[in-house]
Amino acid sequence: MTGSRTGAGGGKVEITFLPSGTSVRIPTGTTVFHAAHWAGLPIESTCGGRGTCGKCGVRVVSGSAEPMPADHRHLAGKLDEGWRLSCQCTVVGAMTIDAPPPSTTPRAATMGVGRFVLLEPNVVKVLLEPAPPTLDDRRSQLLRIVEAVDEAGYACRYEWQIVPRIAEALRHDGPVTATLVGDHLVDVERGDTRERLFGVSIDLGTTTCVCTLVDLRTGSTASVASALNHQSTYGADVIARTAMAMQGPDEVEALRRTAVSTVNELLSRVREDAGVEPEEISEAVVVGNATMLHLLCGVSPESIALAPYVAAFLEPQDLRADQVGFDMQPLGRVALFPSIGAYVGADIVADIVATGLVRDPELRLLVDVGTNGEIACGNAERSVATAAPAGPAFEGGEILHGMRAVDGAIEGVRLTDGVVELQVIGDDAVVPRGLCGSGLIDAVAQLRLVGLLDDGGRMLAREAAQELGHPLADRIETVDEVRAFRLSDAVILTQADVRALQFAKGAIATGIETAMATLGVTAPELSAVLLAGSFGSYLDPRSAQVIGLVPPVPVDRIEAVGNAASEGAKMALLSFREREVAWELPDTMEYVELSGQGDFNDRFIANLRFPPLASLPDLEADALRSATTVEAAG
Amino acid sequence: MTGSRTGAGGGKVEITFLPSGTSVRIPTGTTVFHAAHWAGLPIESTCGGRGTCGKCGVRVVSGSAEPMPADHRHLAGKLDEGWRLSCQCTVVGAMTIDAPPPSTTPRAATMGVGRFVLLEPNVVKVLLEPAPPTLDDRRSQLLRIVEAVDEAGYACRYEWQIVPRIAEALRHDGPVTATLVGDHLVDVERGDTRERLFGVSIDLGTTTCVCTLVDLRTGSTASVASALNHQSTYGADVIARTAMAMQGPDEVEALRRTAVSTVNELLSRVREDAGVEPEEISEAVVVGNATMLHLLCGVSPESIALAPYVAAFLEPQDLRADQVGFDMQPLGRVALFPSIGAYVGADIVADIVATGLVRDPELRLLVDVGTNGEIACGNAERSVATAAPAGPAFEGGEILHGMRAVDGAIEGVRLTDGVVELQVIGDDAVVPRGLCGSGLIDAVAQLRLVGLLDDGGRMLAREAAQELGHPLADRIETVDEVRAFRLSDAVILTQADVRALQFAKGAIATGIETAMATLGVTAPELSAVLLAGSFGSYLDPRSAQVIGLVPPVPVDRIEAVGNAASEGAKMALLSFREREVAWELPDTMEYVELSGQGDFNDRFIANLRFPPLASLPDLEADALRSATTVEAAG
Repeated sequence: MTGSRTGAGGGKVEITFLPSGTSVRIPTGTTVFHAAHWAGLPIESTCGGRGTCGKCGVRVVSGSAEPMPADHRHLAGKLDEGWRLSCQCTVVGAMTIDAPPPSTTPRAATMGVGRFVLLEPNVVKVLLEPAPPTLDDRRSQLLRIVEAVDEAGYACRYEWQIVPRIAEALRHDGPVTATLVGDHLVDVERGDTRERLFGVSIDLGTTTCVCTLVDLRTGSTASVASALNHQSTYGADVIARTAMAMQGPDEVEALRRTAVSTVNELLSRVREDAGVEPEEISEAVVVGNATMLHLLCGVSPESIALAPYVAAFLEPQDLRADQVGFDMQPLGRVALFPSIGAYVGADIVADIVATGLVRDPELRLLVDVGTNGEIACGNAERSVATAAPAGPAFEGGEILHGMRAVDGAIEGVRLTDGVVELQVIGDDAVVPRGLCGSGLIDAVAQLRLVGLLDDGGRMLAREAAQELGHPLADRIETVDEVRAFRLSDAVILTQADVRALQFAKGAIATGIETAMATLGVTAPELSAVLLAGSFGSYLDPRSAQVIGLVPPVPVDRIEAVGNAASEGAKMALLSFREREVAWELPDTMEYVELSGQGDFNDRFIANLRFPPLASLPDLEADALRSATTVEAAG
Repeated sequence: MTGSRTGAGGGKVEITFLPSGTSVRIPTGTTVFHAAHWAGLPIESTCGGRGTCGKCGVRVVSGSAEPMPADHRHLAGKLDEGWRLSCQCTVVGAMTIDAPPPSTTPRAATMGVGRFVLLEPNVVKVLLEPAPPTLDDRRSQLLRIVEAVDEAGYACRYEWQIVPRIAEALRHDGPVTATLVGDHLVDVERGDTRERLFGVSIDLGTTTCVCTLVDLRTGSTASVASALNHQSTYGADVIARTAMAMQGPDEVEALRRTAVSTVNELLSRVREDAGVEPEEISEAVVVGNATMLHLLCGVSPESIALAPYVAAFLEPQDLRADQVGFDMQPLGRVALFPSIGAYVGADIVADIVATGLVRDPELRLLVDVGTNGEIACGNAERSVATAAPAGPAFEGGEILHGMRAVDGAIEGVRLTDGVVELQVIGDDAVVPRGLCGSGLIDAVAQLRLVGLLDDGGRMLAREAAQELGHPLADRIETVDEVRAFRLSDAVILTQADVRALQFAKGAIATGIETAMATLGVTAPELSAVLLAGSFGSYLDPRSAQVIGLVPPVPVDRIEAVGNAASEGAKMALLSFREREVAWELPDTMEYVELSGQGDFNDRFIANLRFPPLASLPDLEADALRSATTVEAAG
């Protein structure tokens, strides 16, 4: 790729679109074309905002807009009236724009979390009928194609490796099909191949990698596959892999190769499933946390791990597929989503795109719970992102019987009428062997709800529970001089486990609190709390609320949004407009560094406690009654 | 690379520079900055004409020049007076420009064929002192460097593979050195490495490859090496290699690999000789004929070989070194000179740069004699290029005792006072085994001068010569019923050999005649005839004149310019201004396709004859006297 700097660094300015009067605040440096899309008023374009199709003209009613060369080319004679190509017009200050409605409505689909997306992929196939060379027209084959693409209304740049492809396609007369990814000319084929147009979105998770093959003509998913990240053999989490990478370049290269092999396994599966050739996949859009993206590019994440925790790169990257090593069109492009910070990665940016968090007026909170909790809060007006170091408890680490969410893990716990109901991963015969993150949170929340844990996290002694006639009193034991609650023959939850969870949830709750305090908003103002990431999908919203992992909002406002990151990547694949939004997103959000907050420790300590059950807005009276047990037993 | 189209396609317009009043005709689409250099009035710049340093301001006195974004940045307040950055100002029509003289005079050197070159290489090292990251400044390492380069006044784009280099350089505090090739950021190193700055020029000849290692700080040559093109094992000439390439992609790849291995052998030798590490070579500039450049890029030259003879690419290319396979700075750049046509290659463009043929007022003719004769004629006002298919005679092909210029080849012949003097390649004891091209031309020219060949190329019979008492009469024999002249025990020159040479020289003479006719000029107007290429260096100017290979100008106007292509490449390496001239050159010259000329056959047949000796402007009377022998003997 050839990279460029993101955004313009300046502040935000307001741009108003007539005739609707819709306003949007956008970073300076954004084009009017993209600002309109931010405002939900897409302007017509076939070239993707590159100044070549000439269709995105608007009239500047107020504000500064010097005419650009493309304006002279396409709008000569209308410049004095204020007409400009919106894609060439960079916003430097407040503006009012009269934008004619599109004459044609592009196809659209609902994607992500209820987002309405215009299907205008970044990949375009153009049928060309280049005139054969003659003694009078001896242009090179390269120039012949480049000029034909230009005449078709598309800007194009090329890498020299396209030349043999062109020479092959032009060996015989007849039409050829040029494939453009953005303005990169990535293939030239003999004949008309416009029927075959594919892209993939890739969510390169630390644990799991998901690949979605998309038919870019229709927007439909042709195949999906997921696999364990092959890097897992080198260590389960980001910390283990970073430690390995810090050993030297060979280790970085080993991690890079395994990341690539993970993706290639998935590409091979989705291709086979859908009957698609590698060369037919023109673009991949990749999301993942900053460490995963560093390793995919063969960059050591060392600087992310060491104070002051800066990434080697956060900017979106536009890479060539053969250089990355993906088994797809060799000259095809691999687009890496931008990250917001070293610990608020491209996966969160994709979550935000999928949920529209920073484009809608309603105030929402997005939390991706994991070793590192990633938090975004806000709306179209203003938004804040931060990261909170939760530690390994949510992944079963530092928990006596903690384990990953595999067969034998307790993933759900209900304590009702003195009965312990366990939901265990695996078939019916599986014997519970330990607790995974969601089981841990459930167990602690249930112990709170049945009155066996106080606000401070202290577990009731067996004798005290027996005295109160608590039906689960006999489940309380003392193991190695520490109180514990027996969940099954093999699995107990200790007082120390509860403390570990308190530290983890305390960190995330502090991050959320800081983000909300920065915005000056309170829990009742939140229209939704979105739990992102695969862990978020398994989390019981009530449990998250009860332990205070999320702010005290009614449970029906807590929503798991599943693999929103994959959805965000897919949206960017299918809509160049959504992609622009994603690429500009880091510049539009405020980033708060928790460790830079003077009152972090105070807030953290306060957040170690569980919220008083009475403070939860929608807890039924009976739950509250039983929950008073532990208080009474003090 | 990322390519772009050359030139703007339009016609030429005149631009006048004040206060000198100097005018130059340049293609539309050229910038004022480059036009000034064409006119020999270089404008100050440190960023190489990328709109970032802001030093190249000029005042537009007349002509159209819309202000560009960079103008607003650097010249705000002076725009109304007509000030513009000359590097951002594209010439669309006639203009008058007031250009202030540079405040500093860049270093310069005499290079090429007496060219005065400003030493401003395309490669720049910039010392940066990036502030270390803090909690308040958490920009990515990438952005930190890109912004520091920007602040130093240089535009920069990057490929993602630079990120690990940046991460490594920033592992410790302190200054770093960024290397820019053009606007490509190709390396970032810890410390101050500005003392080490190297580039190479590479002349990839069909037979011989020459590599010159240049210290870009001083402009001095650090080492030169040459070697046989390793492709020779696959065939001696362009035709043999094209035939091999047409067998399929594997053969093209084999030819590509051997071209690269040739260059790498030379790189290794010049590096070792000068004590330079691969990473210290930041840029390579490559010249060669179009077929060689195609093969270097792994592109089949098939389309060059088949009617209507178009190249896959003619445009200048900007490639990444590791993708080409050169053993130098991996992210360094490899610049391929543009070609004018499929048979007027980048080597001729480099010749033209080295000689200044299209920039000086004097009218000159440049000829590169070989299997394919390449011809350029003109001056700053107007110039024409063409190519003439000479066939293999100049390389010893189709000549009975023809051979390449290796040990045992007769490379020079003198016939004086009845004595045959032979100049033979090799040590004193070597026995002549055959005739190479220059020996062939000498032999024929000498036979003309001693009166043994008539204007039509007919050799005098032995008996007729004896009758005339010619001292060399006994050297004339009849072999296989064909007349022949015995040069040595083992080597004769036959009547058929003379005919073969007539065909070869006739083709080139026709090319020259066509080029000159296109310009409407005659031989006496030529201030010089430049013989380029290694063959040109060995050619005796008098012999070239006598056989009519070149127009009838006095011998002292015929000049061998040696390996001018290497010099032209070196100039482009050492001066970004010379490079711009080279890149624009194909658009400034007219290309004449000989096979498209209706009267080609008539001209060709006329040019098979040798010029009457009396028509040669500077032949001594005695030479003319003896030359009448053959006529008298009719």
